[in-house]
Amino acid sequence: MTEETYKSIPEPTLRRLPSYHRYLKGLAARKRPVVSCSRIGEELGLDPTQVRKDLGYTGIIGTPKVGYPVDALIEAIEEFLGWTNANEGLLVGVGSLGTALLGFERFNTYGLHIVAAFDNDAAKIGTTVHGRDVLPMEKFVRLATRIHALVGIIAVPAEHAQTTANLMMQAGIRAIWNLAPVPLVVPPTVIVQQDDLFASLAVLTQKLSARLKSERV
Amino acid sequence: MTEETYKSIPEPTLRRLPSYHRYLKGLAARKRPVVSCSRIGEELGLDPTQVRKDLGYTGIIGTPKVGYPVDALIEAIEEFLGWTNANEGLLVGVGSLGTALLGFERFNTYGLHIVAAFDNDAAKIGTTVHGRDVLPMEKFVRLATRIHALVGIIAVPAEHAQTTANLMMQAGIRAIWNLAPVPLVVPPTVIVQQDDLFASLAVLTQKLSARLKSERV
Repeated sequence: MTEETYKSIPEPTLRRLPSYHRYLKGLAARKRPVVSCSRIGEELGLDPTQVRKDLGYTGIIGTPKVGYPVDALIEAIEEFLGWTNANEGLLVGVGSLGTALLGFERFNTYGLHIVAAFDNDAAKIGTTVHGRDVLPMEKFVRLATRIHALVGIIAVPAEHAQTTANLMMQAGIRAIWNLAPVPLVVPPTVIVQQDDLFASLAVLTQKLSARLKSERV
Repeated sequence: MTEETYKSIPEPTLRRLPSYHRYLKGLAARKRPVVSCSRIGEELGLDPTQVRKDLGYTGIIGTPKVGYPVDALIEAIEEFLGWTNANEGLLVGVGSLGTALLGFERFNTYGLHIVAAFDNDAAKIGTTVHGRDVLPMEKFVRLATRIHALVGIIAVPAEHAQTTANLMMQAGIRAIWNLAPVPLVVPPTVIVQQDDLFASLAVLTQKLSARLKSERV
């Protein structure tokens, strides 16, 4: 499959695949051998046609009136999402959010091994957070290059995000997960996933405000 | 403005408004009286036309060749996003992510005051996290009803998300920020903002995997 083919996969589909995966892992734990699109849809509040379409992207085809073999479907999703390759990741910024991220054991299931964390705060450097050493920023490029880290996670304040991204690119990082509330400027060779909790909060408060206003009219 | 009008605002615009706000607050701190779309676009890596369009939704109109008065623009964004009303929010789930959320002081700037946190873990109940009391779930409905809380934040594991949402709706919560990795079933009267860090991670790892595969061909 070429990159162009991959590019045509809708992001909402990609975002739903982890929910399917989570539900399927539950079924596997209860030794269920097969599952239908209708059952998955019912469980996750989705249209069965949508479920069939989403799962089709992974290359798996179900048996009509029977469904999908659970184990094969889990494998197909993991393979498709790149979770079968272990991606070594480095996190920069050990504040509230960075600390929370280091505590998410589920990242390992999702093929992301955060091997070390970095900060420029002398009080944090040398400590261990959720089993990971906190190292000074000066060590970033050397460690990233040595272990061939491909994924960088930015959890620093907005004003340091671009500098951190530049450092990551210098170190050969190919995919950046940006949790700082500011867009990054990167060349097209670098993949960026931007997640901004404050942006989501803005959507929520705006919708609530609009709803309350409309009720007052 | 009716709710229908509000509904037509593109979500990407809403998601960009906090970035503008953050940048403008920086300008205000440095006593800059005016700013142009080109300057904002340059700073945030956006097309000036896009910036003008986004800001237009707030109802403010700039002066050609001069720009926008910084203070008025900040106010327009805050009013538009509903940040001028204080929304009292209750958080459920004081794990890694819940703890991080309680630590984000910036929520206050964004009109969200998380007044208390809830958990069902006896070891957490009775403690204080980032200045907020952790209360038992049994107290949720009574407190929410008493303070007329409108915003609920779900930071519990996936399997408890729907039960938590049901409790919130029972207590009169109108807007739910769902950070559990599972979709919620709610009536149309309840606003839900779903944020799933694992879904974002899936997008990142899938794109990286596809990119690496395409390079190997």
